[in-house]
Amino acid sequence: MIYYFDNCATTRADDKIVEILNRYHTERYFNPSARSSYSLEIAQDIVSARERIAKCLGCGADELIFTSGGTEADNLAIFGSLRKKSGNIVVTQAEHSAVFNPVAELGNRGYEIRYAKVLPDGRIDTEDFVSKVDGNTLLACFMHVNNETGAINDICRLNSLVKAKNPQTVTFSDGVQAVGKITVNLLHSGVDMYSFAGHKIHCTKGIGALYVKRSVRLVPTVLGGGQERGLRSGTEYVGGIVALAEAVETATDNMHLNAVNFEQYKFVLRQCLENSLRWKEICPEHSSPAIFSLAFADIKGEVLLHMLESYGIIVGTGSACSSKNKQSRVAKAIGLAPEYAEGMLRISFSKYNSVEQVRFLGEKLAEGLLRLRKTMMG
Amino acid sequence: MIYYFDNCATTRADDKIVEILNRYHTERYFNPSARSSYSLEIAQDIVSARERIAKCLGCGADELIFTSGGTEADNLAIFGSLRKKSGNIVVTQAEHSAVFNPVAELGNRGYEIRYAKVLPDGRIDTEDFVSKVDGNTLLACFMHVNNETGAINDICRLNSLVKAKNPQTVTFSDGVQAVGKITVNLLHSGVDMYSFAGHKIHCTKGIGALYVKRSVRLVPTVLGGGQERGLRSGTEYVGGIVALAEAVETATDNMHLNAVNFEQYKFVLRQCLENSLRWKEICPEHSSPAIFSLAFADIKGEVLLHMLESYGIIVGTGSACSSKNKQSRVAKAIGLAPEYAEGMLRISFSKYNSVEQVRFLGEKLAEGLLRLRKTMMG
Repeated sequence: MIYYFDNCATTRADDKIVEILNRYHTERYFNPSARSSYSLEIAQDIVSARERIAKCLGCGADELIFTSGGTEADNLAIFGSLRKKSGNIVVTQAEHSAVFNPVAELGNRGYEIRYAKVLPDGRIDTEDFVSKVDGNTLLACFMHVNNETGAINDICRLNSLVKAKNPQTVTFSDGVQAVGKITVNLLHSGVDMYSFAGHKIHCTKGIGALYVKRSVRLVPTVLGGGQERGLRSGTEYVGGIVALAEAVETATDNMHLNAVNFEQYKFVLRQCLENSLRWKEICPEHSSPAIFSLAFADIKGEVLLHMLESYGIIVGTGSACSSKNKQSRVAKAIGLAPEYAEGMLRISFSKYNSVEQVRFLGEKLAEGLLRLRKTMMG
Repeated sequence: MIYYFDNCATTRADDKIVEILNRYHTERYFNPSARSSYSLEIAQDIVSARERIAKCLGCGADELIFTSGGTEADNLAIFGSLRKKSGNIVVTQAEHSAVFNPVAELGNRGYEIRYAKVLPDGRIDTEDFVSKVDGNTLLACFMHVNNETGAINDICRLNSLVKAKNPQTVTFSDGVQAVGKITVNLLHSGVDMYSFAGHKIHCTKGIGALYVKRSVRLVPTVLGGGQERGLRSGTEYVGGIVALAEAVETATDNMHLNAVNFEQYKFVLRQCLENSLRWKEICPEHSSPAIFSLAFADIKGEVLLHMLESYGIIVGTGSACSSKNKQSRVAKAIGLAPEYAEGMLRISFSKYNSVEQVRFLGEKLAEGLLRLRKTMMG
């Protein structure tokens, strides 16, 4: 029996999703680009999937491009949208590696990268961000939900302030930790591009999508058979696409119920840690309900992670995608005090968690902390 | 009941593959980059999968990079291997769109693209190809098996001739229709890069790989969390990777048995068409056993395709990936006579076909041809 609380790293696929995938693996396996009527049906399944997702996210079906995941969507947005050979890009140090590293690469290629400040809870410092935008800003990247702290950025406000300063600036928001967790309305948000991935919402790995507003001209980064209106060639992972539609719908339908449960889970954890010393909640107020991000003084997150694992409890320490780095870039960006900087722990919920599981986690964490603190006192 | 003979477009996934995928969706779903011991196990599964594939293909495990499929692998090979800002690239018009179009894009970017001749059966004209290589040739692309005609190129010979003229030229072979169908030994072939995809060999869509020889320096085209030794970021589609290893092993193990069966299928089809008029086999001698490529005079391939479909028989007309174009680029490249140029039909086999199915196909094709020819005669 395991208690899985690392749902921001990845999630278990739903049984319904597995059913869909199986159907496309063994019955509806036809290539959507071939010419039989079976293939035309499969091509139609992709059309329907696109419509279902568009409805959930408040965009046009023709504004969605399927990719192999969030990282590819981020790369396509960043490398595909640049229309000029020089200019600046505004971003923060708190972005996910899949945005941060492509932008850094553009820095290597001669673009000017401007890093805006991040607040202690992980939110973007709006004023500082917007002050960095000028007439030469080609691209502005502001993630919707920070994957390490859970902080929610007001992307609607960021977008309109950026556009007010430079209507030509293309805006991009990484929505990988937002879709299915908090309300996403792409038309309302005004952003030009928005990325998300299946495996964070109980779908399969290997599928994601990029929203690109009709008015934005994108240049493909993968060329070939001309699938996805020429913007992303390669035989479509059709099962994954249909499963993604199902996963986005399910997550959207259950969003409010999940949020109520997750807030209760946070309440339980705060109660359990009430008497523990020298810890803090990183983003107590403006956070995704699905993420509970903590920092402990003078205790490594990794030590806590392994301690909890001995009880079958799985949690995370920041982003799985940057786990090879010792210290979190985000911990640095939010200005975490040195004694807390290596002590980040990310607890992330899914609908498969229960309040009993959460209480068990909270108790074991509190006990373990007490034991560790005593040992340290020697 | 359908009779599926379009296995070069895509294949039904094996039940064993579905089992593997299901296990990774609901039990072994952990993110291989996270820090728990469960995640370490998953990361180890990727290592094992790489070793299994390397063993089948005669390369080092560290020389394989997993991608979302053949198209992405081709794009990574082509865009990732260029080390100079100018020079020429040697290719043919018979390449798959996933190679042809990225190379054409390099033409737009100022590289010189040299198109070598193709023989009437779809094989590359070796002499012409090699004559186009010179001291400024950065990249030479020669597919292993032509996806429309089935022609097998002697990539070992092409590679050594190219390298003899310019040892600095990077060589790349698209092996999407070769892996699991004909013997592939990467070390022996000498090529620098080689791509293949899962869904052509009864694995899932959404997974493929690129072989890159240790001595070749590749620049990533997708940046992020640094997965795949930094050469292809993004959360790994682990189930797909393990399934790919299984699929490559299975296909390799059954290759010779399949080939014997497929050659029998071709024999049966030739018998059935014996008395039909004005058709030809495009690549009768140097073809992959899995592909039987035909051309009919003054009858559109598409008409035959739909006629066969009325009996539940699915075949292809050239590449599914370029099906939006009316006339096949490959038909043109091999210099098919005008009356045959729109009459291509590709019958491609898998282990799920039987000699009875093939006889049914052959009979219906011969009957249909007779009927169509009579109607045309008025």
